[in-house]
Amino acid sequence: MTAVWGVGTTRFAKQRERSGAELAWEAVLEALSDAGVDDVDAVYVGTVFGAPGVAQRVLHTLGIVDVPVVTVENACASGTTAFHEARWAIEAGRFDRVLVLGIEQMSAHFDGAIHPEPSDAEGRSGMALPSLYAMSASRYLHEGWVTPEQLAQVSVKNHAHALENPRAQYSGRFTVQEVLASRMIADPLTLLQCCPISDAAAAAVLGRERGEPRDVPVRASRLASGRLWDQTTDHVWGFELVRDVARAAYEEAGIAPADADLFEVHDAFTIGEIVTTEGLGLAEEGGGGELVASGHTALGGAQPVNPSGGLLSRGHPLGATGLAQVAEVVTQLRGDAGGRQVDGARVGVVETMGGGVAGIDGNGCVVAVLGG
Amino acid sequence: MTAVWGVGTTRFAKQRERSGAELAWEAVLEALSDAGVDDVDAVYVGTVFGAPGVAQRVLHTLGIVDVPVVTVENACASGTTAFHEARWAIEAGRFDRVLVLGIEQMSAHFDGAIHPEPSDAEGRSGMALPSLYAMSASRYLHEGWVTPEQLAQVSVKNHAHALENPRAQYSGRFTVQEVLASRMIADPLTLLQCCPISDAAAAAVLGRERGEPRDVPVRASRLASGRLWDQTTDHVWGFELVRDVARAAYEEAGIAPADADLFEVHDAFTIGEIVTTEGLGLAEEGGGGELVASGHTALGGAQPVNPSGGLLSRGHPLGATGLAQVAEVVTQLRGDAGGRQVDGARVGVVETMGGGVAGIDGNGCVVAVLGG
Repeated sequence: MTAVWGVGTTRFAKQRERSGAELAWEAVLEALSDAGVDDVDAVYVGTVFGAPGVAQRVLHTLGIVDVPVVTVENACASGTTAFHEARWAIEAGRFDRVLVLGIEQMSAHFDGAIHPEPSDAEGRSGMALPSLYAMSASRYLHEGWVTPEQLAQVSVKNHAHALENPRAQYSGRFTVQEVLASRMIADPLTLLQCCPISDAAAAAVLGRERGEPRDVPVRASRLASGRLWDQTTDHVWGFELVRDVARAAYEEAGIAPADADLFEVHDAFTIGEIVTTEGLGLAEEGGGGELVASGHTALGGAQPVNPSGGLLSRGHPLGATGLAQVAEVVTQLRGDAGGRQVDGARVGVVETMGGGVAGIDGNGCVVAVLGG
Repeated sequence: MTAVWGVGTTRFAKQRERSGAELAWEAVLEALSDAGVDDVDAVYVGTVFGAPGVAQRVLHTLGIVDVPVVTVENACASGTTAFHEARWAIEAGRFDRVLVLGIEQMSAHFDGAIHPEPSDAEGRSGMALPSLYAMSASRYLHEGWVTPEQLAQVSVKNHAHALENPRAQYSGRFTVQEVLASRMIADPLTLLQCCPISDAAAAAVLGRERGEPRDVPVRASRLASGRLWDQTTDHVWGFELVRDVARAAYEEAGIAPADADLFEVHDAFTIGEIVTTEGLGLAEEGGGGELVASGHTALGGAQPVNPSGGLLSRGHPLGATGLAQVAEVVTQLRGDAGGRQVDGARVGVVETMGGGVAGIDGNGCVVAVLGG
């Protein structure tokens, strides 16, 4: 079985002054050191907007040369897609130890929010991701499946979680009213319900299980693309995809949703976490609002979701996000998470959603189960 | 063993008026039809500058949904890297049949030649790929390993080959003097010694061997990254990388260089084909100039190189190039290559070089052996 031998991340912030190589160097060195190795057989890199030469520069400087380097893009799920491909390459016996690097320098590409590609018809017509998520939120409000306060509670929870994460981009003790009163971005989603623009790198070293107590086994990982085009469904975007991929991952791992002790999930917008917790089987469809309101998914609750602060608060440097999620789950399962530690964490789940509208490559989902 | 079940390509040209989805649709439909299948288990996409949503649009329209879609970038070797990853996923038993799509719309990104990324220090300082290849050519001229006329002969040969390839971007019966007299791009490389900016898509369907006589077995594929940074070597850039990756691929396939009946190789610039034929073991180092002058690598010679016209003449739409090379070798091994058919072709080799300076991600090489 494949295991995570080591993880590393930079801090998460707008850090335009730092080069991509500098970010990658920091994450890679920490991951290699954590794994206790100084060489790997292959490298998978996850990035959306690219980091030309970054992996090569870092690898050459470390003396890691003549190995395959494969760069993978799958929108916001690029990091977990690279992780997934690396994991299966190890399972197949292609490699013994693989470095996975996620990196994104968003502030180098965008002065403000991400703007759509000129060739992206949906984006040009306004169907950018905030709008897409806002439509899901509106539907949930209309159906009475969530209240504005429950949506805001996701932001309150994750910003509070991030208070104990020294590498998080934002954190704070906000009230529901403060979240709802922040600037409107895409009705009903206010500023504090939207993830920030981030620069960061995150890395993991994967290998075969070697009996080291700090290694964390990868029990399952699944990737599938979804449907949007020509689709008629009663569900909001993403629900069915998360549900189906999660079911396959749970089946591979031999667990039920109740068996997982913590989750790092794709909360790019508050409604995203609501829909995702439903897709992951923590609540019935339409029950995600009550779930967060109950405290079930908060630190101290039965199944904390996004103890790191999530995309909303830790930050969302696209290609690095999936590896940051993996790093958080590994840290939790080792009991090293300090003030944000989930007590007795044995099994953790990572979920990342890539894309949305067809105009952003991906529209894919990765779910991985670690530990146990 | 993995086999290529089907291949498809568009024509190669500047075709800015055609959408990415239109290009992809044409190549994918031809490949699926050629393979005799209407569904696949997974999709790998190779592209450098991205084709947002293109694969998803085409797949959704074909009803191919809920499968993993992984987009791979490895500079000019993106297409063959996607091919290589797909092949190993089949070898590992992850999937039974995989679609590999390479696509690039270069004229949508560049009005003229590729210009370096702003973050690319080597590119900013003038170390773009034409310069890098020109330095190799200058070294070869200085050592007396090649003559200007032998360099030009690569262009003469490949443009003549392309006369029989109706999908090639350029073709013609040029003389050595005409090639040398064309506009200087990067001394000593003239215009006709440099590959053009191209838009195209190419695709292949891979699966397990199924006993269909038209299927072409994949005997080997290898990928490695190379060295440039902090490197001291007596060889020009790329020679050692091609040599080492080719040796590994030959070993996997159980063949010697002399056993291959044809080659599709990375002739982005004429010197590239010279150095690559040496790295592939068709000549000693420094013997590639005499090799092309002898007619050994021309159609009608013992081991034709780039019967399609190669990157120089068929065109070089980065992400699509590797799949175009695979498509050519498959077509040749089936005996379907018409006026450019290599007589008795049984074994073919594909080689693609990605990147060069560290500032372009990749600096990698893929070599695959098909047929036999």
